[in-house]
Amino acid sequence: MSAHGDANALLAEIAHIGVDAERGGYTRLVFSPAELMLRDWFTQQAAARRLDVETDGNGIMWAWWDVPGRDPGDRHDAIVTGSHLDSVPGGGGFDGPLGVVSALAAVDRLRNCGVTLRRPLAVAVFPEEEGSRFGVACLGSRLLAGAVDPERVRRLSDESGRSYAEVAADAGFDPARIGADTDRLAEVSAFVELHVEQGRGLVDLDRPVALAGAIIAHGRWHLRIEGRGDHAGATRMADRQDPVVVAADAIRSVRERALAVDDARGTVGRLKVTPGGTNVIASSADLWIDVRHRSEEAVRRIIAEVTADAERAAAAEGCAVVMTEQSFSPTVAFDEDLRALMRGALPGAPVLDTGAGHDAGVLAAVVPTAMLFVRNPTGASHTPAETAGAADVAAGVDALTAVLEHLLTR
Amino acid sequence: MSAHGDANALLAEIAHIGVDAERGGYTRLVFSPAELMLRDWFTQQAAARRLDVETDGNGIMWAWWDVPGRDPGDRHDAIVTGSHLDSVPGGGGFDGPLGVVSALAAVDRLRNCGVTLRRPLAVAVFPEEEGSRFGVACLGSRLLAGAVDPERVRRLSDESGRSYAEVAADAGFDPARIGADTDRLAEVSAFVELHVEQGRGLVDLDRPVALAGAIIAHGRWHLRIEGRGDHAGATRMADRQDPVVVAADAIRSVRERALAVDDARGTVGRLKVTPGGTNVIASSADLWIDVRHRSEEAVRRIIAEVTADAERAAAAEGCAVVMTEQSFSPTVAFDEDLRALMRGALPGAPVLDTGAGHDAGVLAAVVPTAMLFVRNPTGASHTPAETAGAADVAAGVDALTAVLEHLLTR
Repeated sequence: MSAHGDANALLAEIAHIGVDAERGGYTRLVFSPAELMLRDWFTQQAAARRLDVETDGNGIMWAWWDVPGRDPGDRHDAIVTGSHLDSVPGGGGFDGPLGVVSALAAVDRLRNCGVTLRRPLAVAVFPEEEGSRFGVACLGSRLLAGAVDPERVRRLSDESGRSYAEVAADAGFDPARIGADTDRLAEVSAFVELHVEQGRGLVDLDRPVALAGAIIAHGRWHLRIEGRGDHAGATRMADRQDPVVVAADAIRSVRERALAVDDARGTVGRLKVTPGGTNVIASSADLWIDVRHRSEEAVRRIIAEVTADAERAAAAEGCAVVMTEQSFSPTVAFDEDLRALMRGALPGAPVLDTGAGHDAGVLAAVVPTAMLFVRNPTGASHTPAETAGAADVAAGVDALTAVLEHLLTR
Repeated sequence: MSAHGDANALLAEIAHIGVDAERGGYTRLVFSPAELMLRDWFTQQAAARRLDVETDGNGIMWAWWDVPGRDPGDRHDAIVTGSHLDSVPGGGGFDGPLGVVSALAAVDRLRNCGVTLRRPLAVAVFPEEEGSRFGVACLGSRLLAGAVDPERVRRLSDESGRSYAEVAADAGFDPARIGADTDRLAEVSAFVELHVEQGRGLVDLDRPVALAGAIIAHGRWHLRIEGRGDHAGATRMADRQDPVVVAADAIRSVRERALAVDDARGTVGRLKVTPGGTNVIASSADLWIDVRHRSEEAVRRIIAEVTADAERAAAAEGCAVVMTEQSFSPTVAFDEDLRALMRGALPGAPVLDTGAGHDAGVLAAVVPTAMLFVRNPTGASHTPAETAGAADVAAGVDALTAVLEHLLTR
């Protein structure tokens, strides 16, 4: 273990886990061998720090630093920090893990400077933040907060058609136990998540660390296009009902409709063509659409336009389309009182909005929540190009330590 | 085994092999467990008919009915019939197997009617006709005919990145042995392939069986699009280099450019987005393009236009594209003398061109070759909807038997 609060050293310890040789970067899908290995590593790190680790019914790990002298199990008024260890396919090594290792490093610092806790601290690790396996981002925090129906979650399926319930059970998690945990939430007085920035805000400001302002509204939709599979050589163009052509129109629509709204974002980054042979007209195509804007109404309007465009394209091709909302996260303004408290520990830190979703954004609806962002020189994220300089990582730990000390001792 | 030349019963025997529960239909990729199981089944069927089975260096199976009294191994002036057992992903059960079971059934019929061979007959099974695993259609016949470089074939890779050489070796085939076999070709005096029709020609004519006229020219290209992976929420639209948007433009281009040429066919049926996360701007996209027309020049012109369109779209998006030809098959007119001979056995059979490629199309360049087509009521192929009625299957066996008898005894 790293005894000196060195988050860079902790990142180096897990740099070999879940490396994606094909895509570059990391693929650490929830309940995959890589993610389970990271959980084991976290458990060992917590144990080495004499933190009491529990994994709750939703698969969230909590590593507790309890208040000496309090009744065992009395964890009211807790301060919680942490992030996630899962990644998108071929993602960077900082998105998620940086918040976890910074939390562990902050525990070391607080211990080293002999801080006296007035309330307990937990380092939390949330599963399936990316939604890369089951399609719903921030799945762990949504379950905890009661923001998603557990029965629906059990039936979510991954790329290979296996349900959340099956996959979780195979990994040793009881899918019957998932769901809202109001007792746990009632114990939490503040959640602070440190995260690598996923844009160029801090690069432009030439600063290492920022406080979060708001998370802009974010929705994900699935567009299913049904056509008619056929032979690519023997079927005349006029006889075709080709879902891939409709998919192309939908991709263009997402681009054009998002471009038409100032500062909106619209993306198709995932696409599946069935059956997927070069000499085969596809029978169906699935695409996943990601739309974000500060205004929830703008997000809804863009997806309504894309749906109408896709329906028109499908009608022209003799295909059928179904657009399904997979998740919708309204604009999240973090807790103003908590941000004011944090400003006391970090005077002059800039405040940045973000277009990325986070567990902190989900939890903001149920507990006072705040975020810290650490500079990312490339501004790129969800790609191996995502990075953070060692000095900035250390500055992030400094900031998180200062904030936690302020919150734990006030 | 089926003793009475019943091709429908033979099809029923293999109906459980390679069923694709996800896509429907069959997925029987070359050297996969399903394809290897079909090879075993074929070997047993041939043995039960006292045919001498050999598998050549290219993985082609030959089941020989030798001329009594000839020197063992003297197989000059052979008549060869057969087809393939591999399928596209989620393909029908007739494309390939119908030609193999009809050949076995024809052997039964010829035996039952006590035909006296004047030359040997072989039932051949060609591997990787669909090109669904390694991207080159008619791979077995191309190797046999010397129409593809063996060294290039050894380096072809499948979806999972494994090379032909590795996969073949694992399946028990020596990849060092692949390549042109002029001795074998010199022995063949005619190749006749029976195949399910992959369009609506026989449906429109209301006939069960046709002779092939020509196979229209057919090329396959791979378009690689490189962009810049990034975060779908944090990256402004103006900052994006999104390969999926370029892919959409290329799909539309294939459709429009093919539509603009009378009776051309242009298809994108296979597409891969990397890394493939909903909340990730892709770093690259790969698409595979299939173009066909009776005129080779028209095929080349269409792909040149699509390439120019893709380059323009890529330049606008800040992406890079590379178009690579994977295969090109010129228009094939089958052997006129052989067709005239077959007309003697099948007076009045209609003659149909086809947009589908076949091993017979490859072999036509090196041996006298002909094809028979059996009616497909849906006209659909490379999909589970492909079918052939039992009576039409029997009519196909009748026709093939008559043709073979004519060729073997004249």
